[in-house]
Amino acid sequence: MRATVLYGPRDVRLDEVPDPKILRSTDVLVRVTAACVCGSDLWPYRGVNTPPEPKRIGHEFVGTVDEVGSEVRTVKPGDFVIAPFAVSDGTCVHCRNGIHTSCAHGAWWGSEDEFGLPVDGGQGEAVRVPMADGTLVTTPERPDDAMLPSLLTLSDVMGTGHHAALAAEVRAGSTVVVVGDGAVGLCAVLASRRLGAERIIAMSRHADRQAVAREFGATDIVSERGEEGVERVKELLGGIGADAVLECVGTEESMRQSLDSTRPGGRVGYVGVPNGGPELPIRKMFGDNITVGGGVAPVRAYLPELLADVLTGTIDPGRVFDLELPLDKVAEGYAAMDERRSIKTLLRT
Amino acid sequence: MRATVLYGPRDVRLDEVPDPKILRSTDVLVRVTAACVCGSDLWPYRGVNTPPEPKRIGHEFVGTVDEVGSEVRTVKPGDFVIAPFAVSDGTCVHCRNGIHTSCAHGAWWGSEDEFGLPVDGGQGEAVRVPMADGTLVTTPERPDDAMLPSLLTLSDVMGTGHHAALAAEVRAGSTVVVVGDGAVGLCAVLASRRLGAERIIAMSRHADRQAVAREFGATDIVSERGEEGVERVKELLGGIGADAVLECVGTEESMRQSLDSTRPGGRVGYVGVPNGGPELPIRKMFGDNITVGGGVAPVRAYLPELLADVLTGTIDPGRVFDLELPLDKVAEGYAAMDERRSIKTLLRT
Repeated sequence: MRATVLYGPRDVRLDEVPDPKILRSTDVLVRVTAACVCGSDLWPYRGVNTPPEPKRIGHEFVGTVDEVGSEVRTVKPGDFVIAPFAVSDGTCVHCRNGIHTSCAHGAWWGSEDEFGLPVDGGQGEAVRVPMADGTLVTTPERPDDAMLPSLLTLSDVMGTGHHAALAAEVRAGSTVVVVGDGAVGLCAVLASRRLGAERIIAMSRHADRQAVAREFGATDIVSERGEEGVERVKELLGGIGADAVLECVGTEESMRQSLDSTRPGGRVGYVGVPNGGPELPIRKMFGDNITVGGGVAPVRAYLPELLADVLTGTIDPGRVFDLELPLDKVAEGYAAMDERRSIKTLLRT
Repeated sequence: MRATVLYGPRDVRLDEVPDPKILRSTDVLVRVTAACVCGSDLWPYRGVNTPPEPKRIGHEFVGTVDEVGSEVRTVKPGDFVIAPFAVSDGTCVHCRNGIHTSCAHGAWWGSEDEFGLPVDGGQGEAVRVPMADGTLVTTPERPDDAMLPSLLTLSDVMGTGHHAALAAEVRAGSTVVVVGDGAVGLCAVLASRRLGAERIIAMSRHADRQAVAREFGATDIVSERGEEGVERVKELLGGIGADAVLECVGTEESMRQSLDSTRPGGRVGYVGVPNGGPELPIRKMFGDNITVGGGVAPVRAYLPELLADVLTGTIDPGRVFDLELPLDKVAEGYAAMDERRSIKTLLRT
């Protein structure tokens, strides 16, 4: 079969690789229908912590079950499934606590599982899914083609935006600022609207992303950044900052802007992967009673609830995809996102 | 009148000072019945950020109203009142949000108010209380003498321990670790029990403090510190750490121990004044989804609720006082706490 391999900075290729096989009785094989490129895939693509050896990549995919191991109970051949960006058993104490990303037996796509067996990347034609009963979520029936993009966002970005909103305790009537206008930031806007936020300020300076943010429920757009951006937010929110700020970037600058945009007693929910730092300024947090929560999103925990809203059409997060390519154009997909010509790129197999 | 003045490291004296007067129509004068020494008073006493000039000190007191300004509505002469450790108007947006410590017109005892008028310290015979309607809480009747210690804890330590527990979302069934066995840590144990925690582990290596912790509801005592302490906590909690860790010290070491004792998806509630730092390690927080919340406690917000429980005898936080001295022995009160001969010292006027 063919799968995506990252060779080095800005060198990503669709390679011929061995077909996956059932290796353990709890595995299933999934034929991938659609996968996509994540903002976090761009870090190694751009040369930040690029693996020294060629490496399979991709952690968001949906598809159809081809074959199941003898102990698999909840998934059967022909089922349409959504894979969250982390493998989890669904039964350990961390999974029961809803923190599937800390699963005692978990693994990451494009890596190795706890037995040292290779775990396929998601940007390929097929994937061996370990601990399939814990990891995968099936749809009640085979979805329409038009539904695919929204279902695919449940692999990562929609669940991650939702995690930011929950961590910042967005609720009915909240005032919210979203820092970051990538797919996760846009999904954080949508998640905030879904949770009943009254005011949602999206920080964005790109017309295409502003348009999606408005569609998703942003009531205001602020294009200024840094201190100017903070001032503008405060002007819009009675001078004091927001109840909830959703940090969806992961740089020191975006975290500072987030903390400065939060009212005393408010909360920052962060899901931007902290890029080499930054440490948090505790004295500011202490004086203003600002809570900081979030982290790597346990999207598996949120999948059933968000899936229900996608299937009824209550939310349409698939709007974040503005470029669709066949899998053999994966290199162009990376380039388009790297050059910000695309918010998020969907790859059809 | 006489009031406590900090002259320099380990030099605290009861001085003759001018009698306080009503300076604004929203002031009241309070004749102090009892005050106390706070762990945070020990920092300047020990030479950390000691003020360059002699300075009035103390921020916890209860007493009787002597005189009220013409605009005061909720307090009258003869009322018994509890003063929280910060002055607040009770009407600005931050006070309405429950964050009285960020009051738009607030002030600190032993400092200056927004008009540049001196605000008395609490360890004296009398105090001018600015914005008395917002700041003070009255008891329904004059309390028994035996009730005084518990009422006095509502000025600071009991509300501060409660804030740590709320910030860490302690609730029915929670597993809790309390780092710090000073008066605030002990009150955090009591607050956790009051909120329904199932398991409360107090970190303490002092027999007298362990005894109070047990009385307050600690189910386990861990005397080890650092990594050993973390291991012992995990042994007691199924190997994964606590739902809620209450950090009541404020050093880098205690914060690290707190983060390491928290289970993935758990919360650190911190009220230890961060002593010159420390910055928070965001990558650990991110990977384990650990939330950090807390700060300078808005005890005014909690006073009515906690007062009700003190008056009915549901909680008895006054047990943290193990030394009682007349005000003119204030220097001995500081020394006793500094040398850890006393958990917390009550000063009678």
